[in-house]
Amino acid sequence: MTAKWDEIDQCAQQWIREAGERIRASFAEKLTIETKANANDLVTNVDRGIEQFFAAQIRRRFPDHHLLGEEGFGDPLEALDGIVWIIDPIDGTMNFVHQQRHFAVSIGVFADGVGQLGYVYDVVADELYWARKGQGVWLNGAPLSRLRPVPIAESVIAVNATWLMENRRLDHRPLVRLAKEARGTRSYGSAALELAYVAAGRLDAYLSPRLSPWDFAGGMVLIEEAGGVVTNLNGAPLDLLGPNSVLAAKPGVHEEILQRYLSR
Amino acid sequence: MTAKWDEIDQCAQQWIREAGERIRASFAEKLTIETKANANDLVTNVDRGIEQFFAAQIRRRFPDHHLLGEEGFGDPLEALDGIVWIIDPIDGTMNFVHQQRHFAVSIGVFADGVGQLGYVYDVVADELYWARKGQGVWLNGAPLSRLRPVPIAESVIAVNATWLMENRRLDHRPLVRLAKEARGTRSYGSAALELAYVAAGRLDAYLSPRLSPWDFAGGMVLIEEAGGVVTNLNGAPLDLLGPNSVLAAKPGVHEEILQRYLSR
Repeated sequence: MTAKWDEIDQCAQQWIREAGERIRASFAEKLTIETKANANDLVTNVDRGIEQFFAAQIRRRFPDHHLLGEEGFGDPLEALDGIVWIIDPIDGTMNFVHQQRHFAVSIGVFADGVGQLGYVYDVVADELYWARKGQGVWLNGAPLSRLRPVPIAESVIAVNATWLMENRRLDHRPLVRLAKEARGTRSYGSAALELAYVAAGRLDAYLSPRLSPWDFAGGMVLIEEAGGVVTNLNGAPLDLLGPNSVLAAKPGVHEEILQRYLSR
Repeated sequence: MTAKWDEIDQCAQQWIREAGERIRASFAEKLTIETKANANDLVTNVDRGIEQFFAAQIRRRFPDHHLLGEEGFGDPLEALDGIVWIIDPIDGTMNFVHQQRHFAVSIGVFADGVGQLGYVYDVVADELYWARKGQGVWLNGAPLSRLRPVPIAESVIAVNATWLMENRRLDHRPLVRLAKEARGTRSYGSAALELAYVAAGRLDAYLSPRLSPWDFAGGMVLIEEAGGVVTNLNGAPLDLLGPNSVLAAKPGVHEEILQRYLSR
């Protein structure tokens, strides 16, 4: 089994680097931008091209693996049996379009639903956050520290401002209280990067009322391997086959947010 | 006059690079963290040491210049006559402490109150945003494009979540409307970096109800030289000798925010 995972990991890292080169090269070309579910949900030809690249590589090299991807080039999955790659070719497309930075390639590789490999690649900063189950979390080859509890009053929490204003997905009032009692809030516009920052201890928590599996799959593997906790906003495990709310945090911080701010 | 500004610019860039090296070296040492006005307003021995470094260099090389600095090693200024350096040794101290990234050295150099040189140096990314009056804005030696108007619906706006919740400084309701009508919001925790991002066209606007001159002096010079507009939230010019509200944006975006969201 170890040899197999070595091979999968080696391929994933090589394809991620190649995807990064393609994305960087795309900055010189004209971008085609479309909107999806709503006017601010952007997708570009580059998102699609990069997912197609991963799909082609995985199918050629590992024909028995499955792929769940944001842009529709994956497989129609109804279960998590076997090995499943969950891929977001560009997480933070709005940043990709507006900033040409602050976006990431995100990949989680699961065996019968259990996270084995996690990758979040910050393309422009050239930073690869990587975890392998049982072997720790690494940033560009340097080990990251194990996550430890901190008090909410000394926590920096990533949350999009949308969820601190009246909205149709959740009651914003407990989150407003959390934001006021924390040391500070941040919002970077890429769930994958924000989850990688939690894994690296730079943020103490991240939360969102609705993410798709490709948004959180890579980051979830990173955080769990770092000793952090990832659940939905009710404290239940995430479903890798559909949309979820997400609360990802350092161990004590996760418990405190659930108990003091999110339970009724 | 040109030769004099060449010399000032050369010194500033050299000192900023040296400050960056000192700050990066400090990551290996133990940090002393204190709080200022409130529990979340942090200051470290590194903030103080870097400001002292700039103060010593400026006084040795340009004994007739004045210095306004965040940490108290500057001059007690009541006017802006002559040449004034306005310096924040580490803008984004909370990020410096929690993340060891996403903070900046910020410097604006003014002649009789008119911005001549602006610098925002993202230390860890090693990115120097630089402007000289009449000579454009540059990022690590590459010219940045002139800022052009965009509609609010396609704008990404930097605003701390604090100002979108009920607070004691301003009426948050018009800003909530702005945040909902914009394409998205971001919050990076460093006003200097956020202003540099506006200058670079990566953000379309930035606003805050209260900044000190050292928070915005460098970024203001960058944005004005890039063709953007910087005023307080009432549309009036900023006072470089005291705290201000700040609205910094691309040209049309600034006008639209003022007229549609901030005028009563």
